[in-house]
Amino acid sequence: MTDIANPILVEATRGTMVESFHRGRYVVMKADGTVIEQGGDIDALMYPRSAIKPLLAIPMVESGAADAFELEDQHIALACSSHNGEERHAHTVAAWLEKLGLSVDTLECAPHYSLRLASAIEQAVDHVQLTKAHNNCSGKHSGFLTTAVHLGEDPTGYINEAHPVQQRLIRILEEMGDCDLSSAPRGIDGCGIPVIGMRLRDLGLAMARMADTSGLAPARAQAIARIRKGCAADPFMVAGTGRFCTKVMEVCGTDALVKVGAEGVYCAAFPQQGLGVALKIDDGAQRGAEVAMGALLRRHGVIDDARAEILKDSLTPVLTNWAGKYAGDMRPAF
Amino acid sequence: MTDIANPILVEATRGTMVESFHRGRYVVMKADGTVIEQGGDIDALMYPRSAIKPLLAIPMVESGAADAFELEDQHIALACSSHNGEERHAHTVAAWLEKLGLSVDTLECAPHYSLRLASAIEQAVDHVQLTKAHNNCSGKHSGFLTTAVHLGEDPTGYINEAHPVQQRLIRILEEMGDCDLSSAPRGIDGCGIPVIGMRLRDLGLAMARMADTSGLAPARAQAIARIRKGCAADPFMVAGTGRFCTKVMEVCGTDALVKVGAEGVYCAAFPQQGLGVALKIDDGAQRGAEVAMGALLRRHGVIDDARAEILKDSLTPVLTNWAGKYAGDMRPAF
Repeated sequence: MTDIANPILVEATRGTMVESFHRGRYVVMKADGTVIEQGGDIDALMYPRSAIKPLLAIPMVESGAADAFELEDQHIALACSSHNGEERHAHTVAAWLEKLGLSVDTLECAPHYSLRLASAIEQAVDHVQLTKAHNNCSGKHSGFLTTAVHLGEDPTGYINEAHPVQQRLIRILEEMGDCDLSSAPRGIDGCGIPVIGMRLRDLGLAMARMADTSGLAPARAQAIARIRKGCAADPFMVAGTGRFCTKVMEVCGTDALVKVGAEGVYCAAFPQQGLGVALKIDDGAQRGAEVAMGALLRRHGVIDDARAEILKDSLTPVLTNWAGKYAGDMRPAF
Repeated sequence: MTDIANPILVEATRGTMVESFHRGRYVVMKADGTVIEQGGDIDALMYPRSAIKPLLAIPMVESGAADAFELEDQHIALACSSHNGEERHAHTVAAWLEKLGLSVDTLECAPHYSLRLASAIEQAVDHVQLTKAHNNCSGKHSGFLTTAVHLGEDPTGYINEAHPVQQRLIRILEEMGDCDLSSAPRGIDGCGIPVIGMRLRDLGLAMARMADTSGLAPARAQAIARIRKGCAADPFMVAGTGRFCTKVMEVCGTDALVKVGAEGVYCAAFPQQGLGVALKIDDGAQRGAEVAMGALLRRHGVIDDARAEILKDSLTPVLTNWAGKYAGDMRPAF
């Protein structure tokens, strides 16, 4: 790793001082590969983590699987989700798997409490029996299984790189990002599937093509339109109560497809502007990624003044102490 | 804020790649002000947050209050603690306040679920009725109240800067850090008390004097020895189950006084070496602060090979996915 520092994107203040700050890198691109705006090293690799779930949902729609199983907006949104494991999320996943002739136990991800503390506390207070459907990636996995079942593939081992499911996903990333991932660094994600190192620039291009599908084959363009529509129609299913992705899409509708990933990653497509966004906070902080993404949504006109007023607690979150008293703010710094 | 980046102190790997990293600054000092080792800008200000609790416990012992109320090691440790709000923490705080003729409601900090997820889940599953004694700072507040009651001060408003309790604490920081905080930046902490911006270097000096008390007045030196002994004797009370501070002090005993603070701060005193340590991770990540502190404990001989073997899961924590499968590591990078 070189030590040319990426720029400071977000600051956390307390009282009269900046207490902490988040460096990172981001790119805003057009579908022809033009870089509209960038910060930091956009040619360095990063793991896209869950921020690419809308891309990973493409095969499910493009293959005809979604139509074959009569999936609704809520399922499309779940296929793109990192959800809170709230009851609507978990129940809908379980019912979806039944529709496929499978069960929750077919999922190869492990149960866990919600990654959102308030939701985890609710689960614990309510003594919710956690199943694999509560894993924050269960919707994505159900999407994978939908395609596999539709194509007559044995679902066993669908999380392994050698399985046709994963091979298809890698191909999608290569096609959409116009890159070769055959020798890219590998790791495993929280839910067990491979993560593959991509250049931030290539991820930005893939997202730009999610925003502006004019250069894509009709079947893919239609699949992407369906994915954007599904997320906009049911943004609760993409994340859940109190979550940045959900709140932004509730306000912006089809004007913004935004998706968080672990370790400070965020991706977005702005269809009105024909722009794709990829960003990664160096230190992996989600709070930094959210505030940086908010600033880009604002700057590129997706969030206008009226929307900014509704979303102000998400764009520049106030930090309070345990008694609820104002202590500081999170704010963009780029 | 200037943009000369502080060095990378900690890396988080996933698979074959560094996924995220934490920059920060640290200083290792002797009690005469000699800098033994440093990284990054040690003259820039930072908020010490809860990492200075062992310093803030000095008045309680030095004033004779701790002896007057026959406080034990567990109370001294609690006065220095950011605890998990486990039942032993909360019960001991409540009993201590009774001893003072006060109640849990005298505390001016607000109840909250444990900051450690696993402990919060336990609280929720067990339907624990959260009180102010569960606030992670309740032990420190009880220490403040002990001194106030002993000196005949009205405890009301003891969290406000104008109260004699807070004035005494500021004086301690100025004396131990050899600095003037009268015009330093101010904010409020999670528990409501003022936080005051200090140079990292001054905090390092204060901690060096906690490690080597030879230049201090006898009453202060005795108070510090008592604080070090109390924390070493009951490290569970300083933090709790699974916590870095507790685990390090369980293994190192009186050889290390280590204390975490919010927003990526860590302080330590190494009495055998006569060294004080202060460190701040730029982005505020506790995982970064812990791994960096572990590296300094190792490097300066507090954690030898035998201790490192016992503490290896704390020094270089393994990152697993939800199924418990190895995904990567946290590791020092300086």
